[in-house]
Amino acid sequence: MVGIPGVGKTTLLSKIVDHLKDHDRSVSVVSFGTLMFDVAKENGLSDRDELRKLPVSRQQELQKMAAEKIAEYTEEVVIIDTHAFISSPEGYYPGLPEHVLKIIKPTNFISVSAKPEEIYSRRMSDETRLRDKITLANVKKELDAQSGMISACAVITGSPVKHILNREGKVDEAADKIINAIGL
Amino acid sequence: MVGIPGVGKTTLLSKIVDHLKDHDRSVSVVSFGTLMFDVAKENGLSDRDELRKLPVSRQQELQKMAAEKIAEYTEEVVIIDTHAFISSPEGYYPGLPEHVLKIIKPTNFISVSAKPEEIYSRRMSDETRLRDKITLANVKKELDAQSGMISACAVITGSPVKHILNREGKVDEAADKIINAIGL
Amino acid sequence: MVGIPGVGKTTLLSKIVDHLKDHDRSVSVVSFGTLMFDVAKENGLSDRDELRKLPVSRQQELQKMAAEKIAEYTEEVVIIDTHAFISSPEGYYPGLPEHVLKIIKPTNFISVSAKPEEIYSRRMSDETRLRDKITLANVKKELDAQSGMISACAVITGSPVKHILNREGKVDEAADKIINAIGL
Repeated sequence: MVGIPGVGKTTLLSKIVDHLKDHDRSVSVVSFGTLMFDVAKENGLSDRDELRKLPVSRQQELQKMAAEKIAEYTEEVVIIDTHAFISSPEGYYPGLPEHVLKIIKPTNFISVSAKPEEIYSRRMSDETRLRDKITLANVKKELDAQSGMISACAVITGSPVKHILNREGKVDEAADKIINAIGL
Repeated sequence: MVGIPGVGKTTLLSKIVDHLKDHDRSVSVVSFGTLMFDVAKENGLSDRDELRKLPVSRQQELQKMAAEKIAEYTEEVVIIDTHAFISSPEGYYPGLPEHVLKIIKPTNFISVSAKPEEIYSRRMSDETRLRDKITLANVKKELDAQSGMISACAVITGSPVKHILNREGKVDEAADKIINAIGL
Repeated sequence: MVGIPGVGKTTLLSKIVDHLKDHDRSVSVVSFGTLMFDVAKENGLSDRDELRKLPVSRQQELQKMAAEKIAEYTEEVVIIDTHAFISSPEGYYPGLPEHVLKIIKPTNFISVSAKPEEIYSRRMSDETRLRDKITLANVKKELDAQSGMISACAVITGSPVKHILNREGKVDEAADKIINAIGL
């Protein structure tokens, strides 16, 4: 499951997990970013900023190690909470590159989006963000990049991608669509 | 050759085949979907609905078997009539995933599109369709997804992709462009 | 570094090279197209037109040989001046297909774009071009294709892609952004 910051992925995820638990399904939600940082700590790093400053090749090794951990999960349903890309100083860093996809072998992709205006205002009201860097044009560019990258992921793996528009005030509707799409 | 439903691919294909036959070229048109269903029947399935309900891994096996049959065609020109993706309950299912591309090794891609309004009205007048699910916004989203997926196919194979806009009443023009693009 | 004709890539590149030389960095700029033609000449071809008329499989061999030469460069910074795709009679021919990416192993992608109107007017004032084939709609289609193809390149390699809008009269700003993105 991918979505740029501000699409409302976290709320959506908790709705899906609640539904699955209500139906006695064994489910695990893994945050790829958190797992990658855990792996980095086991390998001597102390904070997330250091992680971002590592050379590309080293970051890819850690990404691979995180992917290998995910591949070992045995729950009936494993949802990976991640991004099609991470916006970094180097540009859009793919969150699900081919070398990770070949290890994880995802059966389904869910690409969450929202109206650019809604994403923009959610980001502007998030106090942990540098608001001066947020523009509507950038949000639109990110949505396009998400869509391009997830299409590549689908072609590489052969797995289907469900595009979900998470509309303000309609999160239950969006959660239902995802549950139906994955056949849960 | 790919195109979402309603772009007018069937008419276009028959024009191209007529042209090739007029010029004494040995040509074969293969519908990937039909071939895949044939393969499924040989493997015990009885209808198309069953095919769609198979698990992703089983569908991919059948896709692979269909691809292997296509790779055996010996005509001078083999045109594969297919889709960049199939719209299914799981989302956009890639019609030409990497594992199929590596077997078929297509030399050229033709991506057929049409004005969203024309696609919309063609779908609305098609009585076999669930018209309530057809919206102009969805048609536009599908055209974007086709374009993203076929770009990935081109990068994976290294083969060129020709984008053809099939304009209402101008099907001969579109057919000529395709014939020139493939150098036939 | 990729960019469709008219985005101003050449000027941008010379600014970046000047900056790097000012900072005593060892840098090489390789034009993929020129290198490929050099390789073709070593293999018996005499002009660029002949190159374009070769069968797809032969062009891919030459592309591979050019990629192998680039992989041998030992400068601290090697910038490849190329295109996400080349517009040819067969359509959009990928400039960085998977088989080339696996050899070059680029650490960073830079995708240069510009306002469609600016690209259009730069192309119209370029006397070496067939101006009757230039339309604003085509420029927009090419920008979309560039964005789709470079997304696929990023997913295949796992390397980040920086999108740079090269605004008229702001080339220094764009060059600075690229220099920062690559961490030079």
